[in-house]
Amino acid sequence: MTQNSLEFLFHPKSIAIVGSSNNPASFGYDFMNYILSYGYSGKIYPVNPKQNEIMGLKAYPSIEHIPGTIDYVICCIAVSNVPELLAQCHHKGVKAMHIFAGRASETGRPEAKKLEAEILSRARQYGIRLLGPNCLGIYCPESGLSFGYDFPKEPGTVGAMVQSGGNSTDLIRFSSLRGIRFSKVVSYGNALDINQNDLLEYFSQDSETKIILCFIEGLKGDSKKFLKLLREVANLKPVVICKGGRTTAGARWALSHTASLAGSAKIWEVAIRQAGAIPVRDIDELVDMAGAFYFLPPIKGVKVGIGGGGGGRSVLSADEWGENGFDVPPMPQEIREEFRRRGSQLWDWMNNPADVSILVPGEPYTVPAALIEMSKHPNFDFIAANVSEDFPFGKEHFIKAMTDDIEGYIEASKQSAKPFLVIFGTRPLSANEMDHWRWRTIAQMRNRLVEEHIPFFSTVDQAARAVSKLVDYYQRKEEQDKE
Amino acid sequence: MTQNSLEFLFHPKSIAIVGSSNNPASFGYDFMNYILSYGYSGKIYPVNPKQNEIMGLKAYPSIEHIPGTIDYVICCIAVSNVPELLAQCHHKGVKAMHIFAGRASETGRPEAKKLEAEILSRARQYGIRLLGPNCLGIYCPESGLSFGYDFPKEPGTVGAMVQSGGNSTDLIRFSSLRGIRFSKVVSYGNALDINQNDLLEYFSQDSETKIILCFIEGLKGDSKKFLKLLREVANLKPVVICKGGRTTAGARWALSHTASLAGSAKIWEVAIRQAGAIPVRDIDELVDMAGAFYFLPPIKGVKVGIGGGGGGRSVLSADEWGENGFDVPPMPQEIREEFRRRGSQLWDWMNNPADVSILVPGEPYTVPAALIEMSKHPNFDFIAANVSEDFPFGKEHFIKAMTDDIEGYIEASKQSAKPFLVIFGTRPLSANEMDHWRWRTIAQMRNRLVEEHIPFFSTVDQAARAVSKLVDYYQRKEEQDKE
Repeated sequence: MTQNSLEFLFHPKSIAIVGSSNNPASFGYDFMNYILSYGYSGKIYPVNPKQNEIMGLKAYPSIEHIPGTIDYVICCIAVSNVPELLAQCHHKGVKAMHIFAGRASETGRPEAKKLEAEILSRARQYGIRLLGPNCLGIYCPESGLSFGYDFPKEPGTVGAMVQSGGNSTDLIRFSSLRGIRFSKVVSYGNALDINQNDLLEYFSQDSETKIILCFIEGLKGDSKKFLKLLREVANLKPVVICKGGRTTAGARWALSHTASLAGSAKIWEVAIRQAGAIPVRDIDELVDMAGAFYFLPPIKGVKVGIGGGGGGRSVLSADEWGENGFDVPPMPQEIREEFRRRGSQLWDWMNNPADVSILVPGEPYTVPAALIEMSKHPNFDFIAANVSEDFPFGKEHFIKAMTDDIEGYIEASKQSAKPFLVIFGTRPLSANEMDHWRWRTIAQMRNRLVEEHIPFFSTVDQAARAVSKLVDYYQRKEEQDKE
Repeated sequence: MTQNSLEFLFHPKSIAIVGSSNNPASFGYDFMNYILSYGYSGKIYPVNPKQNEIMGLKAYPSIEHIPGTIDYVICCIAVSNVPELLAQCHHKGVKAMHIFAGRASETGRPEAKKLEAEILSRARQYGIRLLGPNCLGIYCPESGLSFGYDFPKEPGTVGAMVQSGGNSTDLIRFSSLRGIRFSKVVSYGNALDINQNDLLEYFSQDSETKIILCFIEGLKGDSKKFLKLLREVANLKPVVICKGGRTTAGARWALSHTASLAGSAKIWEVAIRQAGAIPVRDIDELVDMAGAFYFLPPIKGVKVGIGGGGGGRSVLSADEWGENGFDVPPMPQEIREEFRRRGSQLWDWMNNPADVSILVPGEPYTVPAALIEMSKHPNFDFIAANVSEDFPFGKEHFIKAMTDDIEGYIEASKQSAKPFLVIFGTRPLSANEMDHWRWRTIAQMRNRLVEEHIPFFSTVDQAARAVSKLVDYYQRKEEQDKE
């Protein structure tokens, strides 16, 4: 791989926003607002011929009126005006331009394709790299770039390249709910110039990025190069790919959305796996995998120690781990004997899943205590704790029981000798439920897991699917390292 | 089927709570509290030799001290004291007893099995029917019986028999979040006397129950009768069954939980399907199926018209419906022409999924408008609308856009000529997110769907799985009705 040339995209010293606006219901306002509120520290030049000042900053009638050079242009005007803008940028030393506007080649109209070709040709001529059209651009918390009003301001180690704007904001927001943070996210749309190859190469070399997520509707540019590159990059960092347009209808839409030719689902699936990357089906699964790689140490086997959540849930969680190819071994006799020594009355009843359907006051056998012992035993490769969302009695007892449960798991996760994850159900709450102490307490407990960097999943199936792919990844890596 | 004999369980004229207590952290308090706060209008007799008054009601030292007869006993004392209690109940005309306590045969201990046998023998001798042991008993909103502090008070048409206590409360709470209401729910535990056969027969004859949900860990009593009965009942009403203990580990746990022999998963799956009932994997899927049968008219085909949610989401939703065996036909030319007549600039771009990735002010093509047209077209069997959880710009615009989106779908669902459902993502919120206008607005919009009785699912996969089973059910029924 060659010295990567995209670093300037993420650390521009100056930004011009063309089509900048004081109207809060416009993207020209939005992009200004984002970089201002995210603390971008370089120079910001709003460009709008009809305004003298935008959001407290002096506005310029055109890019040519800006004093000095400009590194990066966020272009919020119609695509048809881009060729002329590029000519003006040429004289200002612009290195890159993010073209927000859509209605380009994805419309399927010949004149739009012709326009895109002209834009590309001019950009090449002037040495300006293009992001888009039809995309949201760059989120880079470290340098204060953003395309959303409530993305986290702290950076993390996940890098993402997302062909869809909506999916890129969903990915960031849904990940942030679990405490996952990003190095950089690039929404790259129609990929007229900068495409998946450039971005994958960049992320592979970027020392701030440890995990790479991709949402791709179709390959642009040199697709053979992509597969070669993917193989190389997947050896260095986990690469998780959600391919959109796997079915006829999905592919038809990918063409209308980002002018992408989706390609055969089967070929994609095989190619991703053969390259050592990880295929997923949707944005939620992309988030699940990000969480798994972000928070969990390597898991190299399928023997799961389960605990908590009540009797019926224990039965079903054992079933669902089992049905996903995991091994749920019985409770080892040594652990039972250990609890017998501690004075347990339930030592001969305890099992995997470890649960407390039978309550005995003062009993030394608790789920967290059992999970800690299980984590030390060779029969288990990792630990999965179920959170109960139900406790009997009233408010006070519920809050105490729920708190004890979660704090117990947090402590167990700290003492655990093996990777530790949590299954914590997610329910479709209406606003009135949010004000009820029951659901609010549950949500407060979720805060605690986020604070303690403990990975959680909404269902056993989701956790099992993610861990299964994690195990595949680390087993493959181990084999490769042996070669 | 014979005249059903369990009606008295759901409409007792008097209830004695044995082991009743003033301690809010005890089940003897809890069960008192539930029936008092749920408005049970019969006579309530707390029984506790150490108290004169419990929760404002006169307490009796023993069941024999209560004046007159007693219909129903909720027993909150240890199982070992039940034989003696039964003897006392015999003289008071008790028809049924709910035995809450566990630590019975599920412990696997021989003395516990012997005790259960004695309890059953006495109950038979005295003509008292037993619910349990090791269960939560009865929720029947119509008569004010409950085993949870925040279950809905309005009745509905779903009947449920649930072998696990925790799963029964989860089922009620999670269903109620989507507006589903119950006729009766029975948590029946170890099923020493009243078992799945009695309950299934009851629900089949109960005119208030239109949909039957079951969570079964293992069959008790006459298992051949169950399969015969299931075939008869499934002809009358949809019966949805979640079988716990499908894997070795799950079955091991079912034995420890409700002393159930789980049986082979494969045999169960085949038996459920052959009987015309609907197998599901967990409580969430039980809720999904309840919602589908509760809110949707029959769906008899797999051609889905999709709309909304942004470009990337459109691509993936088309993929996921397709991968679940559904047909996502292209937008019919007649509908495009219709929008062209209405002055649309996007008429040749619109597609299925119908989306608005391209924004044009004043455009007559909107997602709700497209969905209404699609619902009238023979190419579609039902309509699935995706809710966007993301809108650009700030608070004011977000709230307006989100409201327009949901109100548009509500209107479209009213005008829709075909079954209409919504995909509305559920996110794992922490408490601080609940106070953010963004997530609160989303939750308020969920209220609106609940109020309007519009079924929603958290993911396309969940919706597709439920609709797929709905289609199977109605297609089978149609064939049977022809015979």
